[in-house]
Amino acid sequence: MKNEKFSFVGKSLKRVDGKIKASGAVLYGDDLSFPGLLYACAVRSPRPRISIKKVSDAKASRAPGYVTLVTYKDIKGVNKWPVVLNDYPFLPEKEARFAGETVALVLAEDFRTAKKAAKLAELEYKELPYLDDPLEAMKKNSIKIYGKDNVISSFVIKKGDAAKALENCEYVVEKEFRTNYQVHAYLETQTATAVPEPDGGMTVYSSTQCPFYVLDAVCAATGLPANKVKVIQSVTGGGFGGKEDVPALVAAHAAVGAQKTGRPVRLAYSRKEDFQAMSKRHPSWSKVVYGADKNGKIKACVVKYALDGGAYSTLSPIVLWRGTVHAAGPYKIDNVLIETCAMATNKVPAGAYRGFGQPQISFAQESLIDDLADKIGLDPVEFRLKNILKTGDRTATGQKLDDSCGLGELIRIVRDRSGWKNRKTSVSGDKKRALGFSCVYYGVGLGAKGRYLDRAGAYVNIYRDAAVAVNVGNTEMGQGALTVLSQICAETLNAPMENVKVGEVDTSKVPDSGPTVASRTTLMSGNAIIEACGPLRENLFKTAAELLRSRGGEGKMTAFGGKFFSGKAEVTFAEAAKECWSRRLKMSEQGWYAAPRTTYNMADGQGDAYVIYSYSADVADLEVDVRTGEVKVHKIYAAYDVGRIINPKLAHAQAHGGILQGMGWALMENLVFRDGIMLNPNFTDYVLPTSADVPEYDVYFVEKLYKEGPYKAKGMGEVPLIGVAPAVRNAIKNACGLRLARAPMLPENIWKGLKPAEKGARGPVVEA
Amino acid sequence: MKNEKFSFVGKSLKRVDGKIKASGAVLYGDDLSFPGLLYACAVRSPRPRISIKKVSDAKASRAPGYVTLVTYKDIKGVNKWPVVLNDYPFLPEKEARFAGETVALVLAEDFRTAKKAAKLAELEYKELPYLDDPLEAMKKNSIKIYGKDNVISSFVIKKGDAAKALENCEYVVEKEFRTNYQVHAYLETQTATAVPEPDGGMTVYSSTQCPFYVLDAVCAATGLPANKVKVIQSVTGGGFGGKEDVPALVAAHAAVGAQKTGRPVRLAYSRKEDFQAMSKRHPSWSKVVYGADKNGKIKACVVKYALDGGAYSTLSPIVLWRGTVHAAGPYKIDNVLIETCAMATNKVPAGAYRGFGQPQISFAQESLIDDLADKIGLDPVEFRLKNILKTGDRTATGQKLDDSCGLGELIRIVRDRSGWKNRKTSVSGDKKRALGFSCVYYGVGLGAKGRYLDRAGAYVNIYRDAAVAVNVGNTEMGQGALTVLSQICAETLNAPMENVKVGEVDTSKVPDSGPTVASRTTLMSGNAIIEACGPLRENLFKTAAELLRSRGGEGKMTAFGGKFFSGKAEVTFAEAAKECWSRRLKMSEQGWYAAPRTTYNMADGQGDAYVIYSYSADVADLEVDVRTGEVKVHKIYAAYDVGRIINPKLAHAQAHGGILQGMGWALMENLVFRDGIMLNPNFTDYVLPTSADVPEYDVYFVEKLYKEGPYKAKGMGEVPLIGVAPAVRNAIKNACGLRLARAPMLPENIWKGLKPAEKGARGPVVEA
Repeated sequence: MKNEKFSFVGKSLKRVDGKIKASGAVLYGDDLSFPGLLYACAVRSPRPRISIKKVSDAKASRAPGYVTLVTYKDIKGVNKWPVVLNDYPFLPEKEARFAGETVALVLAEDFRTAKKAAKLAELEYKELPYLDDPLEAMKKNSIKIYGKDNVISSFVIKKGDAAKALENCEYVVEKEFRTNYQVHAYLETQTATAVPEPDGGMTVYSSTQCPFYVLDAVCAATGLPANKVKVIQSVTGGGFGGKEDVPALVAAHAAVGAQKTGRPVRLAYSRKEDFQAMSKRHPSWSKVVYGADKNGKIKACVVKYALDGGAYSTLSPIVLWRGTVHAAGPYKIDNVLIETCAMATNKVPAGAYRGFGQPQISFAQESLIDDLADKIGLDPVEFRLKNILKTGDRTATGQKLDDSCGLGELIRIVRDRSGWKNRKTSVSGDKKRALGFSCVYYGVGLGAKGRYLDRAGAYVNIYRDAAVAVNVGNTEMGQGALTVLSQICAETLNAPMENVKVGEVDTSKVPDSGPTVASRTTLMSGNAIIEACGPLRENLFKTAAELLRSRGGEGKMTAFGGKFFSGKAEVTFAEAAKECWSRRLKMSEQGWYAAPRTTYNMADGQGDAYVIYSYSADVADLEVDVRTGEVKVHKIYAAYDVGRIINPKLAHAQAHGGILQGMGWALMENLVFRDGIMLNPNFTDYVLPTSADVPEYDVYFVEKLYKEGPYKAKGMGEVPLIGVAPAVRNAIKNACGLRLARAPMLPENIWKGLKPAEKGARGPVVEA
Repeated sequence: MKNEKFSFVGKSLKRVDGKIKASGAVLYGDDLSFPGLLYACAVRSPRPRISIKKVSDAKASRAPGYVTLVTYKDIKGVNKWPVVLNDYPFLPEKEARFAGETVALVLAEDFRTAKKAAKLAELEYKELPYLDDPLEAMKKNSIKIYGKDNVISSFVIKKGDAAKALENCEYVVEKEFRTNYQVHAYLETQTATAVPEPDGGMTVYSSTQCPFYVLDAVCAATGLPANKVKVIQSVTGGGFGGKEDVPALVAAHAAVGAQKTGRPVRLAYSRKEDFQAMSKRHPSWSKVVYGADKNGKIKACVVKYALDGGAYSTLSPIVLWRGTVHAAGPYKIDNVLIETCAMATNKVPAGAYRGFGQPQISFAQESLIDDLADKIGLDPVEFRLKNILKTGDRTATGQKLDDSCGLGELIRIVRDRSGWKNRKTSVSGDKKRALGFSCVYYGVGLGAKGRYLDRAGAYVNIYRDAAVAVNVGNTEMGQGALTVLSQICAETLNAPMENVKVGEVDTSKVPDSGPTVASRTTLMSGNAIIEACGPLRENLFKTAAELLRSRGGEGKMTAFGGKFFSGKAEVTFAEAAKECWSRRLKMSEQGWYAAPRTTYNMADGQGDAYVIYSYSADVADLEVDVRTGEVKVHKIYAAYDVGRIINPKLAHAQAHGGILQGMGWALMENLVFRDGIMLNPNFTDYVLPTSADVPEYDVYFVEKLYKEGPYKAKGMGEVPLIGVAPAVRNAIKNACGLRLARAPMLPENIWKGLKPAEKGARGPVVEA
């Protein structure tokens, strides 16, 4: 009811792209056809670290339909993929640094030949010593594969005197945690097609979250200026962070092939290749220490946090930074010392995955918060309520929360909705059921570390027939951006929803709008759309008012649902738009939004890290089968403060997806490496949650309005995932007393961890 | 030297699209490939007017590769092509109104099959009585094929009392004139491809001057809103007006086929089809009367002017209106009566051709002005100088010329450069050589009759790498717009020319910018670019100034040639642009320009008709072979006032092309109809000027700056063509005394017109 003043915002309108996706009409990257299309296939390093002696296509070239071999020598631009630190060559010249790294590409007239040729291509190499463990990489006497010390990046947050404060604490808890990879498991694997243009330019179709990263990479690899490269986001079958950085590499590979041959080149990964070469959620190690005084007030937090970055830096510095900022949890703590690093290993570079370096450390610190509450003897929820960040408080980085902070409310809501106060651990035979709690905060947008990129553009064009076209630089990848942004545009212009179409992202239509990550799309593109709509709205509303007067309308004009009213007179949006056109008013604008400045100081980690935070509180209701170690999650209660909800139905869908991904990471998904080689690069051996694992969802939103947000929205893409794993861990603890410190929390590990008495008779025998 | 203050404007920079066009790298409409492309071929009416009984593909469908027949029944939108009066159905339902009209289309897997199927398609029809002569169409007792009176459109200009003034004139001349069709003869015939999109939308590639007309037509025919149709102008091999309206029809036909089949459809006309079905310059009939007082001051002008519009109205109303406005010539005359009409006939609809209804009437009135001067006994140049419009004078429509009027200067310049004063008719055997004079004015842009369309948009985007992309809604069709608009952008931003790329027109990138006609592109798109560049320039210049200060620059900043200077400090455009990006300034803008208002009253033809006028004066130096009637044009002296010349080299090229086209129309191009059927639809029998006919050009520009113009330019696309025919006619008259009143002035007609004594012995025998 509170959104009654809006026509479209706050309404559960159906997905604008739902029908074409559900019907199969839509074309994904590998469905696009181009005359003369060549197919590329990567020749990959078979070992964790090699010195490349030679790549030969002598055998491959005998395959009918074989076209050519593409190596680093074919790169006309620079052989440095521009990401953050630019240490990743598009194609390696002397050394390949992880098993699965693309060493060269073969091009052929058809996909089968390309695949066959890649197998026939002969890579002569010498194996080099490698690192596969980030903790090993930290050791002074380890081999050095990255810089002087294998450290890709490191950060510190220093607030107060944590060591001293800990000494004075009544209660101190400390624990080491580990988390494993998570594979994005999007439906559509990495796919790009590069099409050379007659003027020497290039059009690139990329399954990507970040068309402008693709643009940068293709320009770098081909040496073309940005106005000769057009990147079009093909309809993208899932992202979750996995279409953030690597699509740029894939597209650059296709573009180099296209530049060499003058023909369109498609590079589409098989699922196995996607597993082997794609970024993933970083494995992590952390040691967290919390200290509280006798009143249960948290006084100090010390965190050491290390990520396994893999062979090249890619996004690790930024992923690590987000984890660093959030490492102390959403609590008011005066003494904080966070020390973090991303280490290089000879494994596939890890990168962006929904939550972006935060779920790992939130898993650790939210688990330990429960342990601390237990130690103090306080209810974990009441303990949190005593310590959480409230409006006016300062975070670990010293940032004052002066707007839109609903965490306390969220905690009380999930507490009450889950029946937390009257909960009891129920035992039904071997099955032990309990609730577990967590709460998190999440900095929306790129924050201080990505501030140069935290701006976005939008093009809004009202045609003469009153159709409205919107183009933005942020992407739809399944999350519902097209629908939400359409609603924002329709609301701002008072245009009927069906008149508005948000088009594909095309880097030649809008300025660089940064990546589609960090839950920033609604906020950034939404604001850019509103900015673009401003002058259009002024023209429309003024013209509508004049038309109303000419129709006898009297008094104040109201605008609602695509119509304008005054007295008994009525004017439709289409009438107003057409009249604007016949007055030759400007009906086309580029909008721009730059996020407010941040003040973060990298030296001590103090200052404003993000412009605003979203919040969540989660309760997991689950059952542990103590005979098998299996966990059945019955229900997740979750409450979110992500500011205004533009589309409740889609917000719920985002929540459901995030929760299930969080559950998968918490309980099942387990990528296994042995000696630097991935053992289960497939969906048979890498276990994902299926529809059978879906819990019941109880999702609730508290709309703490954010004054800078479009219709006062914040961002919600990631926050639903983050709290799930610790809530699950704490519920397992509450169910059977097991204080797990490693994700995924596999049945075998739970089974092994349980006291013999609790295991029951028929437990599996699991190797350590 | 006067343009020294500019870096790029006023410089003869080479065509930005020269290399890819000259090298053959560029792809024209019929070169574009699409997977699954179908080829369309039109089934055309064989007779001038038929009642359609049935179209059957019974035989055609047996051709292997045949796909389907497309008739009006397949039109999902409305069967009215939106042009001006909307009387032309996309596909006729009951009646086809000219020989060559598309009655249906056949689609096939390849072009040959489509062509064959079109021949095999059976059109059952009944012949209807038809009209093929506009003067016949005017008669009361003629058959009626259009409205009540066969009149498509009519206009009047009434100023003073022309009839009365004539009575008081010392000298009166009166003559009827006729002109024939002119075929555009562009290199690339009509071509469009419609590609259905997965969301039900359509992308259309069209060889067109007017992508937004194509958009309107495709939307109308398919029923799609404008934000689901994207029209991209394929590289266009010539326009001259011929790519103004008909491309929309061709594209709509392709789109209806694509919508029916769900596959891409190409429709590309053969040269013969292009002759038969394409618009042309209107044939005309006119009767002009001028009266002058004893001092040689023109006192009255009476014109009746009729165009042969063909079977549908298309652009005839607008073409006629331009002719109407300019019918009295560039003279100060107090008493004017102009009555004009466009008549329907059962021939191919005539339309836009460089000059747009004005060359026909300028041919007549400028011929008669010479006759009047002769009658008075005044030198035709001095007579003109006595009577021409000067700054402050009022035109026939009562418009006061208060800005940028260089006509007098032009006249004196060509007079002097051609040695007019010392001219003599030279006789070398049977060859008689003389000079002939003309002068014209030309309203730039769409003027009052097209004022709703007289606005344009532009998108300017500066990328992070300092590459600049410009998109406009007006097109390059060979005239050099890409280069001129690049210069305007480079100048305004102080960007190096090589950084600027003006892209293809894409209706999804810029708002409806009206047609690329009426010499309006430099003016309209140029101003829109400048408007877009405004805020970008402000950001760039401010940032550059700050960078200069940080580098020790002192004093006033200067900007030139892509660099900024202050004292000894220097900053490049690229540095300034990059700094703007790191400050997250908006580097992307949509510009908009609407032409100033006009005040024309259609009832009496009084008021401001156009926002500004360009001017020309021409002298033809030619030789008549009195044995054969052949004319050899030795040299054309021409001077133009088109405001600032943005690119002298391209301006000269425009002049050369215009002059040669004017010569072709004056002397050679002769489309022949018999009984409503075109007899010479090919380049063998329709004679065009070739390189052998090219005269020497003496082209001179007087830059009367236009305060509203981009860098004070007006427009020059059309004015060079208009004065050629009357100058040629007057030179023939001066050479051999023959006062011709019909164009083309074919050798046989000249031969027939000459007095027997002058014909020589070996003249051809020509049938009447």
